[in-house]
Amino acid sequence: MLITEPVLVDRFKKTRKRTESICEPLTIEDHVVQPVMDVSPPKWHLGHTTWFYEAFILSDHMEGYKVYQEEYAYLFNSYYESKGDRMLRTDRGNITRPSVKEVLAYRSYVDAHMEKFLENNLTEELEKILVLGLQHEEQHQELLMYDIKYILGNNPLFPAYVKRQGGLAAGERNAINWLEIEEGTYEIGFQGESFSFDNEHGRHKTFIHSSAVADRLVTNAEYLEFIQDGGYTDFRHWLSDGWDWVKSEQIHAPLHWHRDGDAFRIFSLNGGLVDPDPHAPVSHISYYEAAAFAKWAGYRLPTEYQWEVAATLYGTRDHGNFLEDNHLEAKAVSEGNNQLFGDLWEWTSSAYLPYPFYEAPAGALGEYNGKFMVNQMVLRGGSCATPREHIRKTYRNFFHAPLRWMFSGIRLAKYL
Amino acid sequence: MLITEPVLVDRFKKTRKRTESICEPLTIEDHVVQPVMDVSPPKWHLGHTTWFYEAFILSDHMEGYKVYQEEYAYLFNSYYESKGDRMLRTDRGNITRPSVKEVLAYRSYVDAHMEKFLENNLTEELEKILVLGLQHEEQHQELLMYDIKYILGNNPLFPAYVKRQGGLAAGERNAINWLEIEEGTYEIGFQGESFSFDNEHGRHKTFIHSSAVADRLVTNAEYLEFIQDGGYTDFRHWLSDGWDWVKSEQIHAPLHWHRDGDAFRIFSLNGGLVDPDPHAPVSHISYYEAAAFAKWAGYRLPTEYQWEVAATLYGTRDHGNFLEDNHLEAKAVSEGNNQLFGDLWEWTSSAYLPYPFYEAPAGALGEYNGKFMVNQMVLRGGSCATPREHIRKTYRNFFHAPLRWMFSGIRLAKYL
Amino acid sequence: MLITEPVLVDRFKKTRKRTESICEPLTIEDHVVQPVMDVSPPKWHLGHTTWFYEAFILSDHMEGYKVYQEEYAYLFNSYYESKGDRMLRTDRGNITRPSVKEVLAYRSYVDAHMEKFLENNLTEELEKILVLGLQHEEQHQELLMYDIKYILGNNPLFPAYVKRQGGLAAGERNAINWLEIEEGTYEIGFQGESFSFDNEHGRHKTFIHSSAVADRLVTNAEYLEFIQDGGYTDFRHWLSDGWDWVKSEQIHAPLHWHRDGDAFRIFSLNGGLVDPDPHAPVSHISYYEAAAFAKWAGYRLPTEYQWEVAATLYGTRDHGNFLEDNHLEAKAVSEGNNQLFGDLWEWTSSAYLPYPFYEAPAGALGEYNGKFMVNQMVLRGGSCATPREHIRKTYRNFFHAPLRWMFSGIRLAKYL
Amino acid sequence: MLITEPVLVDRFKKTRKRTESICEPLTIEDHVVQPVMDVSPPKWHLGHTTWFYEAFILSDHMEGYKVYQEEYAYLFNSYYESKGDRMLRTDRGNITRPSVKEVLAYRSYVDAHMEKFLENNLTEELEKILVLGLQHEEQHQELLMYDIKYILGNNPLFPAYVKRQGGLAAGERNAINWLEIEEGTYEIGFQGESFSFDNEHGRHKTFIHSSAVADRLVTNAEYLEFIQDGGYTDFRHWLSDGWDWVKSEQIHAPLHWHRDGDAFRIFSLNGGLVDPDPHAPVSHISYYEAAAFAKWAGYRLPTEYQWEVAATLYGTRDHGNFLEDNHLEAKAVSEGNNQLFGDLWEWTSSAYLPYPFYEAPAGALGEYNGKFMVNQMVLRGGSCATPREHIRKTYRNFFHAPLRWMFSGIRLAKYL
Repeated sequence: MLITEPVLVDRFKKTRKRTESICEPLTIEDHVVQPVMDVSPPKWHLGHTTWFYEAFILSDHMEGYKVYQEEYAYLFNSYYESKGDRMLRTDRGNITRPSVKEVLAYRSYVDAHMEKFLENNLTEELEKILVLGLQHEEQHQELLMYDIKYILGNNPLFPAYVKRQGGLAAGERNAINWLEIEEGTYEIGFQGESFSFDNEHGRHKTFIHSSAVADRLVTNAEYLEFIQDGGYTDFRHWLSDGWDWVKSEQIHAPLHWHRDGDAFRIFSLNGGLVDPDPHAPVSHISYYEAAAFAKWAGYRLPTEYQWEVAATLYGTRDHGNFLEDNHLEAKAVSEGNNQLFGDLWEWTSSAYLPYPFYEAPAGALGEYNGKFMVNQMVLRGGSCATPREHIRKTYRNFFHAPLRWMFSGIRLAKYL
Repeated sequence: MLITEPVLVDRFKKTRKRTESICEPLTIEDHVVQPVMDVSPPKWHLGHTTWFYEAFILSDHMEGYKVYQEEYAYLFNSYYESKGDRMLRTDRGNITRPSVKEVLAYRSYVDAHMEKFLENNLTEELEKILVLGLQHEEQHQELLMYDIKYILGNNPLFPAYVKRQGGLAAGERNAINWLEIEEGTYEIGFQGESFSFDNEHGRHKTFIHSSAVADRLVTNAEYLEFIQDGGYTDFRHWLSDGWDWVKSEQIHAPLHWHRDGDAFRIFSLNGGLVDPDPHAPVSHISYYEAAAFAKWAGYRLPTEYQWEVAATLYGTRDHGNFLEDNHLEAKAVSEGNNQLFGDLWEWTSSAYLPYPFYEAPAGALGEYNGKFMVNQMVLRGGSCATPREHIRKTYRNFFHAPLRWMFSGIRLAKYL
Repeated sequence: MLITEPVLVDRFKKTRKRTESICEPLTIEDHVVQPVMDVSPPKWHLGHTTWFYEAFILSDHMEGYKVYQEEYAYLFNSYYESKGDRMLRTDRGNITRPSVKEVLAYRSYVDAHMEKFLENNLTEELEKILVLGLQHEEQHQELLMYDIKYILGNNPLFPAYVKRQGGLAAGERNAINWLEIEEGTYEIGFQGESFSFDNEHGRHKTFIHSSAVADRLVTNAEYLEFIQDGGYTDFRHWLSDGWDWVKSEQIHAPLHWHRDGDAFRIFSLNGGLVDPDPHAPVSHISYYEAAAFAKWAGYRLPTEYQWEVAATLYGTRDHGNFLEDNHLEAKAVSEGNNQLFGDLWEWTSSAYLPYPFYEAPAGALGEYNGKFMVNQMVLRGGSCATPREHIRKTYRNFFHAPLRWMFSGIRLAKYL
Repeated sequence: MLITEPVLVDRFKKTRKRTESICEPLTIEDHVVQPVMDVSPPKWHLGHTTWFYEAFILSDHMEGYKVYQEEYAYLFNSYYESKGDRMLRTDRGNITRPSVKEVLAYRSYVDAHMEKFLENNLTEELEKILVLGLQHEEQHQELLMYDIKYILGNNPLFPAYVKRQGGLAAGERNAINWLEIEEGTYEIGFQGESFSFDNEHGRHKTFIHSSAVADRLVTNAEYLEFIQDGGYTDFRHWLSDGWDWVKSEQIHAPLHWHRDGDAFRIFSLNGGLVDPDPHAPVSHISYYEAAAFAKWAGYRLPTEYQWEVAATLYGTRDHGNFLEDNHLEAKAVSEGNNQLFGDLWEWTSSAYLPYPFYEAPAGALGEYNGKFMVNQMVLRGGSCATPREHIRKTYRNFFHAPLRWMFSGIRLAKYL
C-alpha cells in the first residue's frame, strides 16, 4: 500500500492545518478547561497529536532528533503504558503551561522536522506509523468538535462556536422506508490495501437472519414524542443500568437540550441556543437512551453486522454530512441519502469485542484498540464531525453506554 | 409441557427443603450480614425466595389468601419495579428483624398455602410461574453458596462451613486435549418443551469458524505459573479496565487466596484455610483475570456459541460436579469428564446481549432477564454450587467483568 | 484515691453484668449489624469492653495469663494505635464469628481471671487502670443504648426494645425560667480525689460575663414550632456547614422522627413508633440543628464554662433521669429538677479543645481523649442512657457537629 | 468614622489597580483553572470582586444603574444565599467565557460607575458598604496570591511567577526568646472607629494564665528536623483526624515541598523550584501539622487570646513583611521584628467561634462571617500576601484544619 511521498506530505500538512483551523474560533481561555473527565482541553489535543509523531516517529527513527521538551511526554501521553509515566487524565484541565502559543510552537517544531524527515524514502513500516498518526489526528479532530461543543454548551452564557446568517432551513421528514437484508452468511471486517484499524481485522463470516434497517435516523420530533409520552419516567423501556443512570443523573432529555417552558431549546455550534429543527436527527444520545427509544417504538437497534451489510448494500459515503461540509451539526435527511454515513454515529446493539481472528499488534501501538474491548458498545458510520476520508463501512467506533457528548444518534431495525 | 401435579408438589417440597439445608451449618449470626454489596444475607435469600411465590402466585391467584405480613414485600423484593417500593440493596445487611426464626415461620406459612394451592389443577400459565419460582429458588441456592463462602472467607478467623475428615485427595493433571468444532452454520438457543429462561430464546443460526476448546478447565497450578511469571504486574496481558481494577483494588491473586510466605493458602468451604490442590480448577476468577490469563497463555476464551456447540458435541451433564454431589468446591478433572458441566461457571468472550428474535415477556416477570442485557459477560455450564437439574447446554448466566465471588473459572479456546 | 478491693470487685461485677443486661432484650440477629459507620454491633461492644481489661490489665500485669484467643485483639481493638493492627471500623458489621455465645464465653473467661486477679492487693497504678476500664465500660453501655436504638429504629418494622404497659404520661410544660450567672472569674475543670478523665484536667480560671441558662431543655412541642415555621428550609438560621448538611442529607426533622400526614410519630425504645410527648425534651439533635433552633428562637447555646458554672450553682444529679431509672428515653421536666443532669446530653457552643494545662497521659491510654481534640463540639450533663455514677459536673463529652444518634438535646442561654 | 470622599476614591482606585497588578505576570491560560476546589481561577476573583460592588452598591443604590450583564450575578456570586442562585463552586474552573479581556471590561464599566457614584456625598451606611467592599477585595488579593502559587506549583513545569536576580540571601536563625504574658484578665476584640469585621466584635474579658509565646516563627530547618525524626510516621504526635489525613493523603512534607534525593526543593513564587532558606519560616502548613510539630517539640500553639495580648504588648505592624513589600514569600526573621505581623498566618489552638456578645449583621452582608463559625480554626497576624493596611491585632482569619494552600506557619507557646 505504498503511497508516494508527495501525496503523504501533502496529506500530513493538510491534516495538521485542519486541527488548528478547528481551534481558530476559540478564545485562549476555551483551550484550557476540562469540565468533565471525558472532555479534554483543546490545548491538550493540539499537544497530544503532536507528541504522537514525536514519540512514535521522530524520537524512534530520525537520527539526531532532539526532543522539543522532555516534560511534554509526561503532559501529552494519553494512555500508552509502554511510553512511560503520564499525567492523570483528570488533571488535564489544571495545566496552564505550556500556553497555547507555546503548544503551537511545539507543533511548528515537530512539523518542520516531520516534513524534512518525509523527504526521504520511508520504509513500509514507517509509512504505516505515519498513516496511523494521520488517522489518529483525524480522530482527535472529531473529539475536538465534541469537546468544544461541551465546553461552550456547558457555559451558562451559551456562546456560539460560529454565528451563521439565518440558520439552517428546517428539513422535511419522510416516513421510514426499510432497507432489507436477505437471510444468509456474510463476510464482515476489513479487506484490502488501504488503511484500516486493527479492530476491523479478523475478516470472518457471520449469519444474519432476514431483517431490515430504517432508511434514515430518528428525528428530534420523533424523540420529542418519546419524551412527551413519559419516556424518561417509565422504567419498562429501560435497561436496568440505564434506569439507574436516568435516576442518579436526573436525565430528562438528550445532552444539550434545555427545557424552555413546554418546549426545548438546543445548544448548537451554529449560533448557541436555538430552536430545534424537528426533522433533523436527534443527537447526543447515550446507548441507554437509544435502547429505550427503540423499545418504546417497538423496534430494535441494528447489530454492527446488520449495519455493515446495510452499508455495503445501500450506503454511500459521498452524500454524507461530514466535517468538511462545515455544517457542524447533523441535518435533516435529504433526497438520495439515507444517512448511513455522516450526520451521527449510530449506536448498534453489538458490544465492542474482538473479531474471531483478531490479534492485537505488538508494541505500544498494540495498545491502540484491543485493550478497550470490554464494557463498551459499537457505533458505526461517522458523524458531521468526522473527516470524510476517515470513515469506511468496516470502521468500528466504541463508547461506554452512558456517554453522549459525541455526535451520536439512533437508527431503528427489525427482523422480518 | 404440563407436568402432573404430584411431580410438581414433590419438586416444590424438595426445592424448599434444600434451601434450608444449605443454611443448616450456619450460625444465626451468619444469616444476617452483607460484607459487600453483591453478597446478600442468607436470611434475605430465605425470605426473598418465599416472597417470590407469595407475590407472583398466592397473592395474585389464590382466592382469600392473606399476605403473611405486609411489610415483607418491602423487605424481600429484589429488583421488580412493577412490584412496588423496595429496600435499597445496600441495606439488606442492616435489617435484624424479622429474625431467622420468623423468616422460617414465613416459609412454613407460604409453603403450607402453596401445597394446598397445588392440590388443585393448575392452569398452564400458573404452572409456568411455579416452575419459574422453582428455577428462581435454585438460582438463589447457588447464590447462597457464593455468599456463605464470602461471609466466612471474609472473617479473619476463617471458619469452615463443614469440617471434612482428611480432605480431598489431590487430582491428576493431564495435558490439554482440544475438542474441535468444524466450520459451519449452527443453531443456537433453546428448543423444546421443558423449562427454559427467556434469555435462551430466539433460537437462531450463527456461523462458527474452525475452532477448538480445551477438554478441561485451567488448574490452580497453571494459574500459579501466571502469578509467578508476574501476571498481575504486567499491563500487557490486561484489558484497560482490568488493569485499572488490578491497581485500584490491589489485586494479586484470585479471591479467597491468601499469601503465606512464598505460597498461597486457599479458603475452602471444606475446612477453612487449606493448601490448594494443584490440579483442581482455579476458581473465583473475574473476567479480567480470565482474559489476562488467556492472553498470557497465548489462547482465547470461547464465545458462548463455541461453548454451546462444544457442549452439544462433547458435553455430558451426568458426570458433572454439582450441588447435589456435596463436594462444595471444584475438583480436579477425572477420566471421562471434560468439566463442560459443573465444577465452575466458565467465562466466555461473549457479552450478555439479546438473541436476534428475543422479546422480553410482558409484566413483572419480564424484568427477570432482559433488563440486564448490557455491560455484562456470559458464563456457561454451571458449577459445584448449581443444582444438576437446573443447568442445560443453552443456559446463559451473566456477571459484570470484575465480579468473582461466584464459582467461576477458565476454559481456553483457539481458532484452528 | 485507693478504693478497697471488695468495693472494686463488687463494682466490677455489677458493671459487667449491666452490659449484658442491656443486651438481654435483643435477638441474636440484633447483635451483629452496623447500619452506619458510627453504630457498632452490640456483639462488638461486648467483646471490646472485655478486650480492654485483657489488653491493659491481664496481659500486661497478670503472671501466666493466657490470652483467650490471639485473633480477638485484631477484632476488638477500637482505635489504640499502640496496641497493634486492628480491623477497619467499617467492617465491624461484617463479622459473624465469634458468635454471641462465644463472645459471652470470652467475657466469662476474662471475668473469672479478673476476679481472681483482684483478690490480690492492687498497685495504685493498676487500680487506676481498672477504674478506667469500668468507666470505659460505662461509656460503652451508653453507646449500646444509642446503637440499639439506631438498629431497631432503622428497621422498617420498628420493633420495640421493650413493650411498656400504657406508656409514659404526657408531662407538663412550664415557661422557661432563667438560671443566672454573675459576671466574674470562675475555676473550671476537675479537682479532687475521685475518678476523672484526663480531658477534665488542667483546672484553670475563666472569665464569664453576666448571663443565664434556661431551667429546662427545649421540648418536642417547641421544636415542632420551629419545623412548622419552616426552620429546615430557611438558610438564615443555619451555619453554612449545617445548611449543606440539611440539603445533602435531606434532613427535615430530628432523627427517629417519621412524618405521618401533618404530624410526626417518633421511634421510642419504649414501644416502637409512638406519638411524641409534647413536653418531653426534643432528642437526637445534631449541633447544626441545636444552633439553628437557638438562632431562630433568638437565644444562644451555653458555653461549656457557663454550663459548668450553672451545674455548680443549680444542678443536682440525684433527681436526674439516668440509665438506672430505666425510663430509656428523656422525659418531661418535673418539679424540682432542671434537667442539668440526665435526660439528654446538652450541646454547648464550645469546641472540644484541651484546657490550658492539659497534658495527655503517656502510653496507650494517652490515646483515650487527647487525640480527638479537634473538629468536635462539647456536650455536657449525661443522658437517660448514662449510668448515674458515671457523670459529674466537669465531665466533657464530645461529638462531631452532624451526629445525632446519641441522646442529645438543647438548652438555651443568653447574655444579660 | 466618616472618611472624606477624595481619600475613599483614591483608595478605591488603588485597591482596584492592585488586584489587576497581581494578575499581570500571568498568562491568559493561568487565569482560567481550578486545580482543587479551594483554589479559584484568577479570572473569577477579578469578576467576583467587581460583582460585589455592583450587587451591594450600584444595583441597590445608584439610580438608573444598568447591570453590565445579567448572567454575571450567577457566575460571580460566591456564597450569598440572599443574592440568588449561583454556580456550583466546583464549576468555577470550567467556565471559559467571559474571557479575561471581557472581565477586565466589566471591571472598567463598574469602576467608571463607582467613581462617578463616589463623587456624591455618601451616606454613612453606603460608606460602610464601600469600605467593606475594599476590605473584601484585599482579602481576594491575598487569595489570589495563594491560588496563583497553587496553580503554578501544581504544574510539572514549575513556572516561576517572577524571576529574581540572585534570590534572597539566607537569613540568620536566632534561638527562641519568649515573650511573656502576665496572668490576669484581658479585654479581647475590636474597639474603635476604624474598620473592622463583625467577627472581631463582642469585645469581652478573658482570663489568661501566665504564659509566653516565641519571638519568631518556626523555621524550615527546624521543621526539617521534625521530618527527619520521623515526624510524619509516628502517630503519637498527631491528632486522630490529622493522622487519618496523613495516611489517606499520603502527606510527607509541607505543601510545595518536593523531595530531591535526601533533601527537599521548594516551589517559590520567586523563581520556581529553589533550595529552601533554612532560617526562613516553614510555610504552607496545615493545622494538623502545626499541632503535631508543637507536640513533638514539647510546646503548644498559642490560643487566639494569648496571641492578641502578645500582639498588643510586643507586636508592630510596621516592620512586617507584607504584600506591598513584594517579597512574595516569608523570609527569615530580622533584628527588631518578631514576625507577629506579616510573613505567615499563625495557627492558633482556638476554634473559630462567636465572641460572647457577637450578633451577625442583618441582610446579605450578615452572611460574611457568622455562618462559618464551626469546624474551623483561627489564624492571626497576616502574611506576606496580606496588604499591610488590611491587618490589625484583633483580626481573625479562619481555615479548616487540613488546609494549607495559604501562607500559614507556626509560632510556639507555653505556660509558665
